[in-house]
Amino acid sequence: MSILITGVAGFIGCNLARVMLGHGKTVIGFDNLCRGSMKNLEPIIQHSCFKFLNVDLTDIDSYRIALQAAHQRSPVTEIWHLAANSDIPAGVMDSGVDLRDTFMTTHNTLALMKELSIRTMSFSSSSAVYGDLGSKELVEDAGPLFPISYYGAMKLASEAAISAAVESHLDHAYIFRFPNVIGIPATHGVILDFIRKLKDTPDNLQVLGNGTQQKSYLHADELIEAMFFIRSHAKDRLNYHNIGAADEGVTVKFIAETVVTQASPGASITFGEGNKGWVGDVPRFCYSIEKLTKLGWQPKLSSAQAIDKAVGQIVAQESGK
Amino acid sequence: MSILITGVAGFIGCNLARVMLGHGKTVIGFDNLCRGSMKNLEPIIQHSCFKFLNVDLTDIDSYRIALQAAHQRSPVTEIWHLAANSDIPAGVMDSGVDLRDTFMTTHNTLALMKELSIRTMSFSSSSAVYGDLGSKELVEDAGPLFPISYYGAMKLASEAAISAAVESHLDHAYIFRFPNVIGIPATHGVILDFIRKLKDTPDNLQVLGNGTQQKSYLHADELIEAMFFIRSHAKDRLNYHNIGAADEGVTVKFIAETVVTQASPGASITFGEGNKGWVGDVPRFCYSIEKLTKLGWQPKLSSAQAIDKAVGQIVAQESGK
Repeated sequence: MSILITGVAGFIGCNLARVMLGHGKTVIGFDNLCRGSMKNLEPIIQHSCFKFLNVDLTDIDSYRIALQAAHQRSPVTEIWHLAANSDIPAGVMDSGVDLRDTFMTTHNTLALMKELSIRTMSFSSSSAVYGDLGSKELVEDAGPLFPISYYGAMKLASEAAISAAVESHLDHAYIFRFPNVIGIPATHGVILDFIRKLKDTPDNLQVLGNGTQQKSYLHADELIEAMFFIRSHAKDRLNYHNIGAADEGVTVKFIAETVVTQASPGASITFGEGNKGWVGDVPRFCYSIEKLTKLGWQPKLSSAQAIDKAVGQIVAQESGK
Repeated sequence: MSILITGVAGFIGCNLARVMLGHGKTVIGFDNLCRGSMKNLEPIIQHSCFKFLNVDLTDIDSYRIALQAAHQRSPVTEIWHLAANSDIPAGVMDSGVDLRDTFMTTHNTLALMKELSIRTMSFSSSSAVYGDLGSKELVEDAGPLFPISYYGAMKLASEAAISAAVESHLDHAYIFRFPNVIGIPATHGVILDFIRKLKDTPDNLQVLGNGTQQKSYLHADELIEAMFFIRSHAKDRLNYHNIGAADEGVTVKFIAETVVTQASPGASITFGEGNKGWVGDVPRFCYSIEKLTKLGWQPKLSSAQAIDKAVGQIVAQESGK
């Protein structure tokens, strides 16, 4: 028996595969290497229980051939569908990116699960499904759901498709609404942006926005721990949980200062105006993890501790250490 | 200046176009005539302010050519996007139907509105976006949103895409969450099913389910009145309203009896078991129209009166009168 991870060469996918292999699982990984990279898979590519295939999930015929072949070698009992666009601004420019890479990969995955009677799916959704609910607490049952980015829209569309599939042909689905996740291998995000900016101008860090924007952050190691916890403890047919830090988060200013301290001590920081970094970016929210806490899991690191750990790791990654 | 209606040859589209023309508007209608029909357009096809084009909205290149041409003749100031799959069971069999006909038509419409700077959209959503929320009242801000049919999932996906577009390139959007709508020209639905069954077996009507399933119904004439009311009175950038009857609805048994009385008096009625007609069908819900009532509109007909009126109209339609 094996587990398929889509988007295995991405930030979360490669960490998830590594941990699953550590648990003794047989893992098939698909990725089109559009945003993911083989470099991310270096630690596991030689593992005897891991098999990687370069598959374009938006092409259902190639996807079917690859999945059928894997399924015949070793029955695929569940799919962790992580393949998606991870670049929110790209989707603001061209809604086709999120349509194709986030939604169509989900649609095709569900269609093939129906064909092959694979009945358990885990899905990396996002806090972006909530859109901008103002001061309303973001609990899992909150509404209305009006995402303000195509990124969030296609995550919500994917959730909706999975929900319909649970009524039709899935036994169990686990929808994880990811927070801002940090760690390595870092491919995008505010920490990496800041570190790279400081490489260009070591004396000064230019920050988009006024730095008051506040978000909570979870380290990837803890995210994966949370997903496994939910996967083994949640008992509904359709399970959906926010995953995140237990605090209200840290400001962009805090992140900038942490990066400066570790990457280029003494550099000055210049802030822009406004508290929105880009279209589709929610300025601040109250992301509740009470449902997950009640299930029995909570993060060990605060947002600030997660940032501190990740900044150290990404500085090392970028300096090639 | 003109208004585009997509899905103009469908049940709601043809009624909407007729009323708009009556208001003195110039109307462009697109339809691929897959579920809609030219017969539905007979009352308006010769109108000097109406232009119909057979366009497949899922093919963005043909759609672009048709829309650009219309836009050059007479600037399209808004789009009423009604094109969609209307056959819920078809989408249960093949999720590709709702993907293509409901969601991709919305995605393409939004992409072209961005290209051509058309900034006002009205959209026929559905109470199906709510899924099965048990006894929870279906107010517009209810959550979570987990549709139980691909039909509902692709309506929710469309809402999400529109919501993201409002953040990006639309000035105003009007999301109408349709109830069960009845009237003529009837192309599908429980009343038509019953009438056609009675044509085959005039002495007996076989009903799927035990007949206790209860739903509220709105007549198409009132639906259109409500949409115009919302379009002119709702003032947010993103407006979303349930439209429906003011009562808790009538049972399938009531509909069966009304049809028998008008179509084949004296016929017996046989009920099946269970209170779900098919996968994806929500057995009963409390659909709130308080938001619409507060805006200032409410239906004149009860569900029972709407059924009675529609049954009479559809019986006449089916007998060719």
